Amino acid sequence: MNFRVEINVMTKKEILDPQGKAVKLGLTNVGINAIKDVRIGKHIVLDLEADNEEDAKQKAEISCKKLLANLIMEDYHYTISTL
Amino acid sequence: MNFRVEINVMTKKEILDPQGKAVKLGLTNVGINAIKDVRIGKHIVLDLEADNEEDAKQKAEISCKKLLANLIMEDYHYTISTL
Repeated sequence: MNFRVEINVMTKKEILDPQGKAVKLGLTNVGINAIKDVRIGKHIVLDLEADNEEDAKQKAEISCKKLLANLIMEDYHYTISTL
Repeated sequence: MNFRVEINVMTKKEILDPQGKAVKLGLTNVGINAIKDVRIGKHIVLDLEADNEEDAKQKAEISCKKLLANLIMEDYHYTISTL
């Protein structure tokens, strides 16, 4: 079966996000003043083949832990759907 | 009211994603072979103040169109939730 795993990798809350700060300033400059906070991370879409959802979940976990996220500085969340 | 807008900005399907290709190769190298496709984009979390959900949606639209997404090369999707 084919699954789509959508992963969000974000820096942990305790860690400063200078890219987010820059975007917040940029939004103020284009006239949007109501922004309180901006954080920017990665959105990764994996299309993969797996026997079942449990298998897909396992592959997603390994991918995040081994390659996609730096667990010291980043958190990840993902959702799995069938294709 | 405070809202959280979660925006995903991805390059359009027709456009090559070299970063995704590199990650696909990287995943193969760490032993995950079932990956068919990888695409990488940005995940942006905006915390903002708005009168109501309609107002928040409008602010999110303006933010995406004016600053966050390059509409020639990228698509965006967002979800809005209350904080």
